[in-house]
Amino acid sequence: MNNKKENGWEVIRFNGDSKSTQQEEVAIEKPFTIMLNGEEFATIVCTPTDLQDLIVGFLAAEGVIRFYDEIKSISIDEKLGFSYIQLIKNLDGLQLDHSKRFIGSCCGKSRQFYFKNDIRTAKTIMSQLIISVRHCFQLMNALQTKSKQFIKTGGVHNAALATQDEIITIRSDIGRHNALDKLYGHVIQNKIRLGDKLVVFSGRISSEVLLKVSKMGVGILISKSAPTDLALQLADDLGITTIGFARGNRLNIYTHPHRIMEAKNT
Amino acid sequence: MNNKKENGWEVIRFNGDSKSTQQEEVAIEKPFTIMLNGEEFATIVCTPTDLQDLIVGFLAAEGVIRFYDEIKSISIDEKLGFSYIQLIKNLDGLQLDHSKRFIGSCCGKSRQFYFKNDIRTAKTIMSQLIISVRHCFQLMNALQTKSKQFIKTGGVHNAALATQDEIITIRSDIGRHNALDKLYGHVIQNKIRLGDKLVVFSGRISSEVLLKVSKMGVGILISKSAPTDLALQLADDLGITTIGFARGNRLNIYTHPHRIMEAKNT
Repeated sequence: MNNKKENGWEVIRFNGDSKSTQQEEVAIEKPFTIMLNGEEFATIVCTPTDLQDLIVGFLAAEGVIRFYDEIKSISIDEKLGFSYIQLIKNLDGLQLDHSKRFIGSCCGKSRQFYFKNDIRTAKTIMSQLIISVRHCFQLMNALQTKSKQFIKTGGVHNAALATQDEIITIRSDIGRHNALDKLYGHVIQNKIRLGDKLVVFSGRISSEVLLKVSKMGVGILISKSAPTDLALQLADDLGITTIGFARGNRLNIYTHPHRIMEAKNT
Repeated sequence: MNNKKENGWEVIRFNGDSKSTQQEEVAIEKPFTIMLNGEEFATIVCTPTDLQDLIVGFLAAEGVIRFYDEIKSISIDEKLGFSYIQLIKNLDGLQLDHSKRFIGSCCGKSRQFYFKNDIRTAKTIMSQLIISVRHCFQLMNALQTKSKQFIKTGGVHNAALATQDEIITIRSDIGRHNALDKLYGHVIQNKIRLGDKLVVFSGRISSEVLLKVSKMGVGILISKSAPTDLALQLADDLGITTIGFARGNRLNIYTHPHRIMEAKNT
């Protein structure tokens, strides 16, 4: 039997002994294979939105490209789940790097500069941005409010680019690393300067999340969730201010607190 | 400056305008590289507990082994983060498979039988196990209670093997797929029969989670979180009963509800 209907899945709900049957929308998960200069490079399972952002951001995070100009052409077959990228350069040097890496997604792939690619692409952050604790509260609350407006199915992660005053761009995905890659892809394509921006994020701060933020060149990361020990070591080394458990009017500052101001009257 | 102390990290906490400094334990995240017959196979970033279970379960989930007897020797260098596995067979056929796969972790790697390895290892489940809704509630509540006893840092996922009456084994990890791999590794090493068992899980049911449960041969999966559409399609195809949003005395049955009994007096 198949419970899939046109508008979602037919679900049997129990609340104690009370039973009901309802249609429920369920988050879409779809595999996309990236063909790079004609060769299979990687398959990403993702929420199929902002696909070009995802692919460009993934290639940047993996160290394949640094600038959008390095891509000669990009085409996406959304139905079959394939994307074809032609780079200006050839792949000879890259392939070697790639084969030695773990393309992780949930539990991260980093060790302090354990992987070749990370040595090349992770940056020490010199951002001069300073923001107040109150602004941090406001940004996380804005992320929560905005993401509720367009997400119905739950279990989706959000990554946003923000100034101290407002959220500029939000990207969402069932995979939290994909959400960050989508954001990164948007930044690269639009050549957005990041020294005065910060990232507001719904997911846990793993080492891989931290490395992505470092590669973007962002100095402040605010998350709703917990950090890991390895992520904090990296943040400490790379000069990134990490804020975790930002919920309501609470938050924890873990590393480089000099960027966070205690201004009571802002 | 480095805020890492002997018993965790020094954290600056804000609660509104009130500020305090405290030591906080943070989840450990550590990379482990698996050397298979002398060659680098993969690097997993994980919570460094039950490492042998993790490595054995990972190799089984990746289709490298089916039985524990296929491993000639296994040694783990916990400090350096390396494990050395010698298999009885050689790797010639395997390598080809492996290079065509995405070793994902958070957002899954599956497409309905998209990857070669999954075609070989995912099983249609014929389990005759039937359990009551009330037992489902009890098992999820037991998982929550038990996991609180030994986890202090938050943000860790739990996967448990259970009979209808009780939780038998729990494995935990910052990566939800690692938690399942640890459970699978435990099962394989101890030759535990799974036809009458079920899996109780804290994380979202992605396609990769569903495939792991299928490879284990378990017929009922109970999760605290949401499923994805692709996972439900796979569950429907493979004969697995999926239950999501199991919280308190509520739950949703998505696929193959015939294994769940509405017994009011159990």
